[in-house]
Amino acid sequence: MRILRFITPQDEVHYGRPLDEHSAEILDGDPLQGLTASGRRAQISRLLAPIVPCNILCIGLNYRAHAEETGAALPEDPVLFMKPTSALSDPGAPIRIPRSCSHGPEVDYEAELAVVIGRAARDIPQEQALSYVLGYTCANDVSARRWQKHGGGGQWVRGKSFDSFCPLGPHLVTAEEIPDPQALGLRCWLNGELMQDGHTDDMIFPVARLIHLLSRDTTLLPGTLILTGTPPGVGFARTPPRYLSPGDRVRVEIDVIGSLENPVAE
Amino acid sequence: MRILRFITPQDEVHYGRPLDEHSAEILDGDPLQGLTASGRRAQISRLLAPIVPCNILCIGLNYRAHAEETGAALPEDPVLFMKPTSALSDPGAPIRIPRSCSHGPEVDYEAELAVVIGRAARDIPQEQALSYVLGYTCANDVSARRWQKHGGGGQWVRGKSFDSFCPLGPHLVTAEEIPDPQALGLRCWLNGELMQDGHTDDMIFPVARLIHLLSRDTTLLPGTLILTGTPPGVGFARTPPRYLSPGDRVRVEIDVIGSLENPVAE
Repeated sequence: MRILRFITPQDEVHYGRPLDEHSAEILDGDPLQGLTASGRRAQISRLLAPIVPCNILCIGLNYRAHAEETGAALPEDPVLFMKPTSALSDPGAPIRIPRSCSHGPEVDYEAELAVVIGRAARDIPQEQALSYVLGYTCANDVSARRWQKHGGGGQWVRGKSFDSFCPLGPHLVTAEEIPDPQALGLRCWLNGELMQDGHTDDMIFPVARLIHLLSRDTTLLPGTLILTGTPPGVGFARTPPRYLSPGDRVRVEIDVIGSLENPVAE
Repeated sequence: MRILRFITPQDEVHYGRPLDEHSAEILDGDPLQGLTASGRRAQISRLLAPIVPCNILCIGLNYRAHAEETGAALPEDPVLFMKPTSALSDPGAPIRIPRSCSHGPEVDYEAELAVVIGRAARDIPQEQALSYVLGYTCANDVSARRWQKHGGGGQWVRGKSFDSFCPLGPHLVTAEEIPDPQALGLRCWLNGELMQDGHTDDMIFPVARLIHLLSRDTTLLPGTLILTGTPPGVGFARTPPRYLSPGDRVRVEIDVIGSLENPVAE
């Protein structure tokens, strides 16, 4: 099933099943407790991030080819950082260049497969891990590179935390439609130019192994969002570097799931 | 006002105003929307963390004397990392040594002043920052040092994320009772022995400055918890190091606020 969250022309917020580009069938309930088809049709005024996560866990350096482009050694355990939930943003909403990034261009895109945990997961064997996944969507792990590397004492969180730095969507595609999350091509387009062209089979820690490792002695609460890392082609690793500027348009595209497009603004 | 959250012998969860050690006046509502005295008295079966935060922001190296004991340079901007909300734990609840920490002793205590944000704060001048604080409480930023330093590719989040690694409480003391958060002594006792004996006037980034800096281009949502860093005396920096073991009891004590005590268990 495909789930979207949207706002109607009457300013009501609903979950829905897409019918066409401009309308959806309202789904009652919520994705974690269960959704029920209502039979009622509503007009989509604007799409929202398809889920409001309780925690946003992010994995760094999870694609072999991206680890190579950054010059980093392959990690033995997942490199875990987080974004605050305040960074969440909607399909089509602007990625805003923070005024705190006025030292020079530094804001970068990262196309990522996002995993939503559907039920509490703790100490989960790898073989059972995918049964804890509610669904998948597209994310852009927007990153301010100077802040990430130099402005936070080596800790990445500050450079990943600015408002609008976690666009998510457009649809949550439930797990039964994606039996193998390691079989997905993912791409990032900047103003129509292909910048990242990767495949989830290149992940160092595949989704099931991530859930297994992250859940050791640690509860992944229902609604936890896991951004699973980005393939090569990010802006800071290019020659010359290519950072985001107002007027740009970034599109994250993942097979089966769809496209998440966001303009860039001041 | 002092706010506690507790569970009754009938398994009801309430906010309350402490009356004596074993009972409280029930407060209706919640601390972010507003609490109203109910006039009803209830028995406290067990204390809970006084607030359920939406995000847990943590500051590293925020006491001059602690930065010196770790050998780190004084940071120019706050060193920001996070804990997932799943790490939250209650007064009196055991700090559990994770099985993932079986390489050798590594679990450490950190006594910290915790700040709860009461209303959305973005781009807040330092002079207005304290008016966004709902209240203060005690936290223990429990840390697995091997994971913090070596198990997460240099990112601290994994070593700070295990279940039970964020004891909080016992009371939330609202801001009007603490006009100057830089005037508080804080201490950590391990089995009755004084391990940390600091004062918030030693903070590199005082609370108002932290809120100013963390809110730049970034919304601190109502219910955001900020752990403001720890004074010197943590276990890993001692000679010889002193890590937590099952059977230990850790007590974080902050002037005006009170004492947060937790046993350590397997």
